Amino acid sequence: MLRFNDLADFSREEIKELIALAGRLDAKPEPRALEGKVLSLLFLSPSLRTLSSFQAAMLRLGGGSFVISPEMSIHGLESRYGIVMDGTAAEHVREAIPVIASYGDAIGVRAFAERRDINHDIADNDFKGYTSLITDKPWINMESAIDHPCQSLADWKTMDDLGVPDGGKFVISWAYHPRALPLAVTAATIHMAAKRGMNVVNLRPPGFELPPAIMDKARKAAAESGGSVSETTDRREAMEGAHVIYAKSYSSTRHYGDKLGDQALREELVHWCVDEPWFANARPDCKFMHCLPVRRGVEVTDRILDGPRSTVIKGARNRMYGQMAVLYRMMKG
Amino acid sequence: MLRFNDLADFSREEIKELIALAGRLDAKPEPRALEGKVLSLLFLSPSLRTLSSFQAAMLRLGGGSFVISPEMSIHGLESRYGIVMDGTAAEHVREAIPVIASYGDAIGVRAFAERRDINHDIADNDFKGYTSLITDKPWINMESAIDHPCQSLADWKTMDDLGVPDGGKFVISWAYHPRALPLAVTAATIHMAAKRGMNVVNLRPPGFELPPAIMDKARKAAAESGGSVSETTDRREAMEGAHVIYAKSYSSTRHYGDKLGDQALREELVHWCVDEPWFANARPDCKFMHCLPVRRGVEVTDRILDGPRSTVIKGARNRMYGQMAVLYRMMKG
Amino acid sequence: MLRFNDLADFSREEIKELIALAGRLDAKPEPRALEGKVLSLLFLSPSLRTLSSFQAAMLRLGGGSFVISPEMSIHGLESRYGIVMDGTAAEHVREAIPVIASYGDAIGVRAFAERRDINHDIADNDFKGYTSLITDKPWINMESAIDHPCQSLADWKTMDDLGVPDGGKFVISWAYHPRALPLAVTAATIHMAAKRGMNVVNLRPPGFELPPAIMDKARKAAAESGGSVSETTDRREAMEGAHVIYAKSYSSTRHYGDKLGDQALREELVHWCVDEPWFANARPDCKFMHCLPVRRGVEVTDRILDGPRSTVIKGARNRMYGQMAVLYRMMKG
Repeated sequence: MLRFNDLADFSREEIKELIALAGRLDAKPEPRALEGKVLSLLFLSPSLRTLSSFQAAMLRLGGGSFVISPEMSIHGLESRYGIVMDGTAAEHVREAIPVIASYGDAIGVRAFAERRDINHDIADNDFKGYTSLITDKPWINMESAIDHPCQSLADWKTMDDLGVPDGGKFVISWAYHPRALPLAVTAATIHMAAKRGMNVVNLRPPGFELPPAIMDKARKAAAESGGSVSETTDRREAMEGAHVIYAKSYSSTRHYGDKLGDQALREELVHWCVDEPWFANARPDCKFMHCLPVRRGVEVTDRILDGPRSTVIKGARNRMYGQMAVLYRMMKG
Repeated sequence: MLRFNDLADFSREEIKELIALAGRLDAKPEPRALEGKVLSLLFLSPSLRTLSSFQAAMLRLGGGSFVISPEMSIHGLESRYGIVMDGTAAEHVREAIPVIASYGDAIGVRAFAERRDINHDIADNDFKGYTSLITDKPWINMESAIDHPCQSLADWKTMDDLGVPDGGKFVISWAYHPRALPLAVTAATIHMAAKRGMNVVNLRPPGFELPPAIMDKARKAAAESGGSVSETTDRREAMEGAHVIYAKSYSSTRHYGDKLGDQALREELVHWCVDEPWFANARPDCKFMHCLPVRRGVEVTDRILDGPRSTVIKGARNRMYGQMAVLYRMMKG
Repeated sequence: MLRFNDLADFSREEIKELIALAGRLDAKPEPRALEGKVLSLLFLSPSLRTLSSFQAAMLRLGGGSFVISPEMSIHGLESRYGIVMDGTAAEHVREAIPVIASYGDAIGVRAFAERRDINHDIADNDFKGYTSLITDKPWINMESAIDHPCQSLADWKTMDDLGVPDGGKFVISWAYHPRALPLAVTAATIHMAAKRGMNVVNLRPPGFELPPAIMDKARKAAAESGGSVSETTDRREAMEGAHVIYAKSYSSTRHYGDKLGDQALREELVHWCVDEPWFANARPDCKFMHCLPVRRGVEVTDRILDGPRSTVIKGARNRMYGQMAVLYRMMKG
């Protein structure tokens, strides 16, 4: 495997094989599979789960990793081209990325959306620029402006583990959050669930409609898998018979890059906090999913997070096993 | 071993076995003992020795670790319950701790005392709250509000290595420091020395008496081991025939949580700096111990630290070997 | 090998053997050579390449490392002797360095020049003080005030890899940079190239003459190897027939420690930016070398860095392989 950038690059069978490999590596550890192998981890945006789970994943396979993160002296990493670097930035990504990549057998890169221009972010232009500098090593998207394939792989596995049927109903719901967040997880998740063959409903308030590019990609996946994709603002309709509700906040797409406009719209939406009444007409065993970190009492209530519907800890653990499968395929043999 | 939280949870024989194992792993390395095993290291308070020695310990046994530390983007980790997280904190310990634990085969946690309410800290309520979230993995106390068992295990081994007799005289002395520090090391040390069977004297100025809960725990250990525990303000009496003086500064217990009251008392005590005259009536080979970091010329003079009495470097090295024994028992086979 | 502090401590044959070993470890990995071995990495100055490449080097040999860096809570590490530590510094290097060393099988130390007194820095007094505290472990200079042997070893190998002849012409040129930088890389590089047997020219503007101690050391190496060393301000003369130009900025030696004097001189020198016209009378295949990080459009133009002359990525990769050879010799068997 030369890159793990987008679930859309893989067939359903390939994804199922990765998930099966993840399960096998959990059940039957292979602590020497990647001995002497190195994963370079470049975080241009902060992380807790991804940082931890990738390090742990390499260790469990007998290899190791090193981390370059925004807490280090790389705040001034320049990414603009054709610039005279006489300011504070001491190094350009054109050197930093190939060098960091050269020390590993594969490299993971994280760079969140700028959230200024929605088309720029949907096209993942910044991330494509960064990864175009990796010329001779496999690489992994550890969350870009518009994708988070490691999260999606883990979420697919979590639903498998919990017996959520491939053709089940999957609600992805916007939730309130005091800050405007990137679209990456929602975009990745709606596509993942559609590709899994689920009947996917995006539940969101007005002003948070997903852009056509994101919806079209999900619909294409649904058409191939036998699933479906729709959007609504009607919570009751969305939750009817749902197997899963996946909460994720994101920027207003109507006011993308307009902080004040987003804020004005957002502050009316504090009631978009997932709670037990939301589940009134869902399936009794309807699950609650979230990629974490989650704001308690803001995106979802404590009783949901602490109750039997929540899959968040199991889901986070699957990050490690999903990534072990990806790393195994990239670096073994 | 499911947890390493307090030496009081172990018999003297079990501690001696751990120390013997530590010595064996030093003399006869086992670089594949923990291959593929992962230690999660969660520092909610800063560290240098503990951070380094745990990473090195895992590596020497063929495993590895990852670190989440306060320097990372976790400053806003929320720990209050029932709160609406609409402030700066992006994640709650109820998610963060189980997730971090889920990536390892064991987890170490450090969280210093709040130093507001002495009973809250002596009960180790915050730390108990954090570790209650670790439901299915062994865990290690890497220093809590009131305990530091890894330090105590290393100190016990250091005394063994230096031939300090089990029934020797052990003076633990308060020392001047410009800041009010936690009680954890003193509480752990007085109990450790008592459990080892030593005749323990706590030497401290008025206003720094140890709380009954700490003294009673040490006295109980002494009663079982044949040692003794007492307190005094009289340096000459304390040092008479001493085998060891262990210096450690801590908050005034009379003014606990009262910064100004503590400071007013403390600033009269700059002469509590261990120096050669303190040893006038000690045993000629009386040793100086300190858990580090130590402030030179403040807690102890250069000539003591740089002279033959000092055990501080040897003691710090034993942190690694003691922890290797704990990790070996937790994760091997 | 007990220390790797300066290429001058090794014969040419020993250096060639290290480079051959580096090549062998690249071609034929030995992922268990250093199993259970630990490298302590102490950064008192910031790093990206050295930080990454040493961690990766240990992993490739089956060992591991831990990092203590300035981003951690060690900003207040005290290094003055005989001081009363009642300020902000919580720990002294006299404890920190031996303790950190005690957890590893070898230790790397980085500490940049103070840039106050040129003789103090040329004598490497601070670094000698730090490393004098490492009494029983091999250690590596990861860049001191006046040396950077890991960089030089990599540069030598890079020239070998590219077929630059031992007796070729090597221009080391000052380049513009908005900040006054240490002399370490230039001092190490001029000596390395001389020792390799090259005809070395130091090209620099007036006020940036290298101190006699640096020139004499390089001339001594040249005398033994059959090379030569000279200085000039004349770019055309310097570049005539050159095989390599190595750019590196540094403080004005005339105004060393005098920030305003250095700045006044420096701001007239923005045209010292390596560009294609510099190569007019060089050999057609003349290479461009730089230790990185490099400021684009300031020290060198984009077209040079992105063109066929540039060796910077290859050179940075050789850092890892050179260091693997050093670590292998230090810790294996």
